[in-house]
Amino acid sequence: MIYFDSAATTWPKPAVVWQAMESCIRNAGANPGRSGHQMALMAGRLVDEARELLATLFNITNPDRIVFTVNATEALNLAIKGLLKPGDHVVTSSMEHNSVTRPLYVLQGKGIEVSKVSCARDGTIKIEDIEKAIRPNTKAIVITHASNVTGTLMPIAEIGQLARKKGLRFVVDAAQTAGVFNINVPFMKIDLLAFPGHKGLYGPTGTGGLYIAEGLELTPLKEGGTGSMSDVPGQPDIMPERYESGTLNAVGIAGLAAGLKFIRSEGAEKIRQHEMELTQRFLKGAEKIKGLSIYGPEQIYARAPVVSFSLAGKATGKVGTVLDKQYNIACRAGLHCAPDAHRTLGTFDQKLVRFSFSYFNKTEEVDYALRSLNEISAVPPEKFNKSEKNGSCGC
Amino acid sequence: MIYFDSAATTWPKPAVVWQAMESCIRNAGANPGRSGHQMALMAGRLVDEARELLATLFNITNPDRIVFTVNATEALNLAIKGLLKPGDHVVTSSMEHNSVTRPLYVLQGKGIEVSKVSCARDGTIKIEDIEKAIRPNTKAIVITHASNVTGTLMPIAEIGQLARKKGLRFVVDAAQTAGVFNINVPFMKIDLLAFPGHKGLYGPTGTGGLYIAEGLELTPLKEGGTGSMSDVPGQPDIMPERYESGTLNAVGIAGLAAGLKFIRSEGAEKIRQHEMELTQRFLKGAEKIKGLSIYGPEQIYARAPVVSFSLAGKATGKVGTVLDKQYNIACRAGLHCAPDAHRTLGTFDQKLVRFSFSYFNKTEEVDYALRSLNEISAVPPEKFNKSEKNGSCGC
Repeated sequence: MIYFDSAATTWPKPAVVWQAMESCIRNAGANPGRSGHQMALMAGRLVDEARELLATLFNITNPDRIVFTVNATEALNLAIKGLLKPGDHVVTSSMEHNSVTRPLYVLQGKGIEVSKVSCARDGTIKIEDIEKAIRPNTKAIVITHASNVTGTLMPIAEIGQLARKKGLRFVVDAAQTAGVFNINVPFMKIDLLAFPGHKGLYGPTGTGGLYIAEGLELTPLKEGGTGSMSDVPGQPDIMPERYESGTLNAVGIAGLAAGLKFIRSEGAEKIRQHEMELTQRFLKGAEKIKGLSIYGPEQIYARAPVVSFSLAGKATGKVGTVLDKQYNIACRAGLHCAPDAHRTLGTFDQKLVRFSFSYFNKTEEVDYALRSLNEISAVPPEKFNKSEKNGSCGC
Repeated sequence: MIYFDSAATTWPKPAVVWQAMESCIRNAGANPGRSGHQMALMAGRLVDEARELLATLFNITNPDRIVFTVNATEALNLAIKGLLKPGDHVVTSSMEHNSVTRPLYVLQGKGIEVSKVSCARDGTIKIEDIEKAIRPNTKAIVITHASNVTGTLMPIAEIGQLARKKGLRFVVDAAQTAGVFNINVPFMKIDLLAFPGHKGLYGPTGTGGLYIAEGLELTPLKEGGTGSMSDVPGQPDIMPERYESGTLNAVGIAGLAAGLKFIRSEGAEKIRQHEMELTQRFLKGAEKIKGLSIYGPEQIYARAPVVSFSLAGKATGKVGTVLDKQYNIACRAGLHCAPDAHRTLGTFDQKLVRFSFSYFNKTEEVDYALRSLNEISAVPPEKFNKSEKNGSCGC
């Protein structure tokens, strides 16, 4: 099978990831931060190590400002709902994932105002449009680092400067970039950085996190046992426990630490270079396929390794199904949980097929996919859309 | 090492658990419920299987009424905060874990009234006391199935009957019992059942869940991508997606399914029998140890396999440290994230040492622990408390 669905979760994972998980379960399988015995301390050290590796990656001074969550969505919910209060206004973009738009939609019903800055049809945003959207009661700018549909990279360093200049909190969704893209928290003036552990960081599902700037106080999403200050009736205000109630996914976090070490040992530059080469190769080859339209920026440097496309006259869900069933290519066809992005691209009704690449993909796989798409493009639309294999969009 | 800390998380896990996790990562490591390709469907089937196994275990008709969470604490937060609205009154007990008391404490600041029914010094509760606490605006009864300090089992079938009779919602914290204790959702009239995956169900950390009764609508804790109905601006109202935003911990859930199958193949009765024999053996042996006081019910049938105790004149944290460092026994000394329970027992200042047993413990381990405690009890308190190895309570 050819796996082109790494924007959903990377696969395969490096062998060191599950080896670290097995080692954690077998040798350090206690509850970190709960008891004081040696195995609980070992589990705690594994969690600390992951926190330190993440801090180094994002240039965060204090690792304890990073809290673990089950995924980036939880991190974004904590950031957005924990930060915004009734009467606040927030600026976001028209390219966001539902992990941003849905919490904001709920908050709109609670007296929080939301402005969505319209992006261009390639997903790019203009800083001046963000600036224009700022009001006296604007509290924060919430934006994705890269679109999960088009891969369009947002100029977060510049947006961060603007946020700082205007005294706003800057919330970044790094779902598609945490791993080998440059994310420098102090330089980019990021106050809240949400990231998944199971995508570009090559950790297992069940991992993610949120960086919370020094001095920034959020309303916790959850309260409960924190393993410390048990006598305090409310949630303790110490970090990271304040936002980490209940047993942590220590096994998953051990795997995440191994993913982070894998990136470090391979070299982030080398990984990104390979992913970009695959993306470039696909973009270049796709130009020659009849009826194939690519969405997103033309320049490779303006992209994460995510490419969405349509084939003229061919039903998107059907293309996804045929790629899977007939060509053994795993990809994602549909709205990709980002209806606003599709509205921006003008593909809300049509939907798109998405290929997303990882370090483990090979150039031959890209070439095979291009040949496959070429074959599909040659089938007359009426015959293709009518054939027995019905495809439904995995929205 | 002797591991007596299974109330925090069970260890070891059955080998089938990590084998299932490795198999999931290697062979079905896609994102369940997101894309339509074969590997995503395989991942989805693993998640479905776990849901079905849980439904069977708890006698739940519709598996889709079970939602996965990262731990029982998240499940309790979703249950409690999702259910209660300002003006509501809730009845709970004085034996609850902070995973119940802290969310309720936060809600008290938002116009929700909380009555804590005082339990006896062995942790037991009287149904009539619960009934007396019910008011016209009472919405729910929230109670633990078994105390995480004393193991005291609460009469949840009777409390469920009372809740049903009074038209109240019944929320059960099964953190210490989900696995081999009888939890029959319809019979016990449970509306919301919160459980961890990594304790008595022998799954990995990072797993837990909440059963939500048919027709019961909760405010979600989190919104985001659900992999379906992406075009709906708010959170879709279909189950289980409504409460499962973002990527699920598929790898952990695959391990949880293996844990559930392990219980089924060994036999829940056999597991419980063994755990109770260990508990009984410890209780009986402990009677003979000078200065050792056991807390909780005397009758073995009234307990989960959790025993807390103190040694007269000996600092609790120190006892925990000596057991760990000198005798290689991993246990937990402190407040166990349950300050109310310790207030009830009269041990808030003194704290307690907790032993909690699992299927993998051996009678010889219990005997060794008894001999160790006998040795410790023989050391004069002033010498013991002053010795170099300082112990701090893992609260």
